[in-house]
Amino acid sequence: MLFLQGGASTQFAMVPMNLLPAGKKAGYVLTGSWADKAYKEAKLFGNAYAAASSEADKFTRIPSLSDIVVEPDTAYVHITSNETIGGIQFKEFPTLSGVPLIADMSSDILSRPVDVSKFGLIYAGAQKNLGPSGVTVVIARDELVQESPKSVATMLRYDTHAGNDSLYNTPPVYSVYMMNLVLQWLRDQGGLAAIEQRNAEKTDLIYGAIDRSGGFYRGVAQPDSRSRMNITFRLASEELEKRFAKESEQQGFVGLKGHRSVGGLRASTYNAVTYEACKALAEFMDDFRQRNG
Amino acid sequence: MLFLQGGASTQFAMVPMNLLPAGKKAGYVLTGSWADKAYKEAKLFGNAYAAASSEADKFTRIPSLSDIVVEPDTAYVHITSNETIGGIQFKEFPTLSGVPLIADMSSDILSRPVDVSKFGLIYAGAQKNLGPSGVTVVIARDELVQESPKSVATMLRYDTHAGNDSLYNTPPVYSVYMMNLVLQWLRDQGGLAAIEQRNAEKTDLIYGAIDRSGGFYRGVAQPDSRSRMNITFRLASEELEKRFAKESEQQGFVGLKGHRSVGGLRASTYNAVTYEACKALAEFMDDFRQRNG
Repeated sequence: MLFLQGGASTQFAMVPMNLLPAGKKAGYVLTGSWADKAYKEAKLFGNAYAAASSEADKFTRIPSLSDIVVEPDTAYVHITSNETIGGIQFKEFPTLSGVPLIADMSSDILSRPVDVSKFGLIYAGAQKNLGPSGVTVVIARDELVQESPKSVATMLRYDTHAGNDSLYNTPPVYSVYMMNLVLQWLRDQGGLAAIEQRNAEKTDLIYGAIDRSGGFYRGVAQPDSRSRMNITFRLASEELEKRFAKESEQQGFVGLKGHRSVGGLRASTYNAVTYEACKALAEFMDDFRQRNG
Repeated sequence: MLFLQGGASTQFAMVPMNLLPAGKKAGYVLTGSWADKAYKEAKLFGNAYAAASSEADKFTRIPSLSDIVVEPDTAYVHITSNETIGGIQFKEFPTLSGVPLIADMSSDILSRPVDVSKFGLIYAGAQKNLGPSGVTVVIARDELVQESPKSVATMLRYDTHAGNDSLYNTPPVYSVYMMNLVLQWLRDQGGLAAIEQRNAEKTDLIYGAIDRSGGFYRGVAQPDSRSRMNITFRLASEELEKRFAKESEQQGFVGLKGHRSVGGLRASTYNAVTYEACKALAEFMDDFRQRNG
């Protein structure tokens, strides 16, 4: 495990710079904005292709694992385990033979147990479930971080950090310290199995308010791809959405406006968001519907 | 001014990646370990040469400004304003005509007033005089950060950050917040002129203990290059140096052992180190000399 400076955006470059040699290709599973950023960055440094995509469905679902096509000479396949803007999330992970699976887990790491042995490399910027921004965790198989191409900048080479126990440079010490406190908190909560259960209960409250609304709220994500971290939904008109955003803010809810690139509404339910907050939102949603339905 | 993730080591790569095009050269003034790191990193990405060096003097001084040779087709000249390991510091800065001067000021920024207009670009990792590690400040002329080569990773392009007010990605918010508090503190101290005066008084105490010791303590830096941030000195034997390090630690002094790459002793006197602490060290040095001289 490595602790690196910066966020996921730096990993978008480091993954292909370190792991995509000339003559090889990288497959990217396209699921929305974040996967697309990683894909575009990889194309700067080598040959990258779409191993699967749900663009035809406007990224409202995770592609079926059986739809992932691994071309010959593929160095790795990259997925984005949770898309914060679209609100979709992988429920299970593909099993690839002979090709490392690489995952950006920035927005759902530690939200549930994950079989790390399925992955060649996992990276996650801290600022959702881990701690303050400024540090990124990389969990990797030794052989992937042992020798990076010599042409890569020293700080962007995985072997620089792997060979120095993440202490080649002064690490972002405060973020690392806080992450340790978060991990202790998580353990005290009962660990990953317990937090997964709690996240399911939390999000069931809000998805329930959508599902019982008779179409007043329309969930953006297809049900089998619904994220447990970001719940995206629409109302009948943008005017009504604006009213929802404004009234919810007056009631003390924060950040329910959807990402500016897609509009609509979005409730983020990271580990630190309480069951009580989610319950209050579901109640507000029922009440708002009764007043405006 | 930009606030970037990471530390100076990342800038060692970003400077040449952004500002050293093919067909141009970069001049590096070699003054010790940190300048050498920047120089070696630049060589990964282009043509870099030693514009001046004090290696023949074992980096015990800053080269004379008149010794700096700027070759034709030079894209920029890079200096390291303070060398933490050797304990030497630029007292004045070269005036170059038509070639941007770039400075790593990581270890002495805000320790004294600086005429920023002499520089094309200044960078400084936060963790000496600015705040917690994890953020780097870049002060640059607009024309140097307006358009970076498209082949550079998005996060390593100055234009990415300049074009997004340093908010292209989630910044290391805690480090930035703390930096603001440090700047307020600095203003309350009387600003840069006052802090320069205080740093001079602080370090005069310790250099005084060296100079009146009759050779018991030998200052590493030549007098006209002495750093106001890192004071390096030797004793007659490594055994005596070990005793000094051990006894000073017992007296509550922290980190007086020199950097492992050069040995000896080193007192760091960054802005946060008090006058009283420097006075106590000078007194300890006198006392240690009387007991061991």
